[in-house]
Amino acid sequence: MSRDTEFSNAAASLGYAFDGEIKIGGNYVPLVRDGRHVYLSGQIPRVGDAVVVTGRAGADVPLAAAQLAAKVCVMRALALLQRSLGTLDKVSAILRITVYVQSAEDFTQQSEVADGASELLYRILGAAGAHTRTSVGVFQLPKNATVELDLVAAVA
Amino acid sequence: MSRDTEFSNAAASLGYAFDGEIKIGGNYVPLVRDGRHVYLSGQIPRVGDAVVVTGRAGADVPLAAAQLAAKVCVMRALALLQRSLGTLDKVSAILRITVYVQSAEDFTQQSEVADGASELLYRILGAAGAHTRTSVGVFQLPKNATVELDLVAAVA
Amino acid sequence: MSRDTEFSNAAASLGYAFDGEIKIGGNYVPLVRDGRHVYLSGQIPRVGDAVVVTGRAGADVPLAAAQLAAKVCVMRALALLQRSLGTLDKVSAILRITVYVQSAEDFTQQSEVADGASELLYRILGAAGAHTRTSVGVFQLPKNATVELDLVAAVA
Repeated sequence: MSRDTEFSNAAASLGYAFDGEIKIGGNYVPLVRDGRHVYLSGQIPRVGDAVVVTGRAGADVPLAAAQLAAKVCVMRALALLQRSLGTLDKVSAILRITVYVQSAEDFTQQSEVADGASELLYRILGAAGAHTRTSVGVFQLPKNATVELDLVAAVA
Repeated sequence: MSRDTEFSNAAASLGYAFDGEIKIGGNYVPLVRDGRHVYLSGQIPRVGDAVVVTGRAGADVPLAAAQLAAKVCVMRALALLQRSLGTLDKVSAILRITVYVQSAEDFTQQSEVADGASELLYRILGAAGAHTRTSVGVFQLPKNATVELDLVAAVA
Repeated sequence: MSRDTEFSNAAASLGYAFDGEIKIGGNYVPLVRDGRHVYLSGQIPRVGDAVVVTGRAGADVPLAAAQLAAKVCVMRALALLQRSLGTLDKVSAILRITVYVQSAEDFTQQSEVADGASELLYRILGAAGAHTRTSVGVFQLPKNATVELDLVAAVA
């Protein structure tokens, strides 16, 4: 199955469409291409106008919902890459993802939250989805989002 | 108007000079050049010996003061680039800025804080100032700074 | 003295061995090589199965213990580089380290914590250990680690 088909299937599984406008929050751009590299701005779990998962992981937000937030973030990033490159088949590697989790004081499962994003990268991109990862627990995020994720991709 | 003139004008508007020593906090270097790329260390809003905006955005620090902090951080980064390259005209792109905002528990305007830095990048660098951005709300920052900002630039 | 010997000496000084399995927390890889660059995943101060420094810097964790945590993190990163490259002699530069410190509300010595890592980079890599650095205070980290550190290295 092609990566673009896998992407569409993953979107359908999540129950969200990523074919509308992908809003970003301010005075910057969603991605910058630099030779073989593409930098993506930090993504929060926004679909259309709504941030679909808000609040603090480990307090008001259970692990599964935080993982969903991470999935929506990475789908937004992949949607932006797909639109910019024409197809996800041009992604040769994901060099880094950084996953920021709005956390309760004693919530220590940031890696498990980030696994939601990592699994989708492997599912959609196959071996090219292998990536380095940093996941940390922050105090707040824009618009009270539960997760924010950015990444750097390499293209063929 | 040249970028270096725009930089000087922006410094004058802020009421700060960026022509003195730019101190960094520890056992590292302010920037590393790697081929066409320059990595900048995290900048706090320090001018000379003083950190000019300290405290928690949304609690003791109102939005406008936090935006000022973001502006001072990015001016420091640009000053370091200007000194290293001779002129800001050699900057071809800003690949990424990451903006860390020391936040109150319920403060969710990290993007609006970061807009302070983003606006200056566009004003001073023009189209080359387009950048990807990640802004997050952290629990503390070195020296109780309200904002810390790092960036990666590409040079012509 | 060779860098690999310096590395072994530093490990002996710390009282930890870095020759066993280096576990990572989830569904990703410890490092990605991209041309002349190597991205390392976020490292917590884990030796074997144990995270050797946990808790909040400035509350339950004093500065010296947090600095030890930063040292263990950077030793793990260097161990991964050494295994991947065969020898640390192939490292030509450290472009960036980012140091996340699980901090108490009023703990502002994140730079001093990060100095633990920076000093080891200079000690082991010499001039190639010069690096840019960003250190921030976060609310939580995976497995309640006191420090998490990631880096990007350039290779000859």
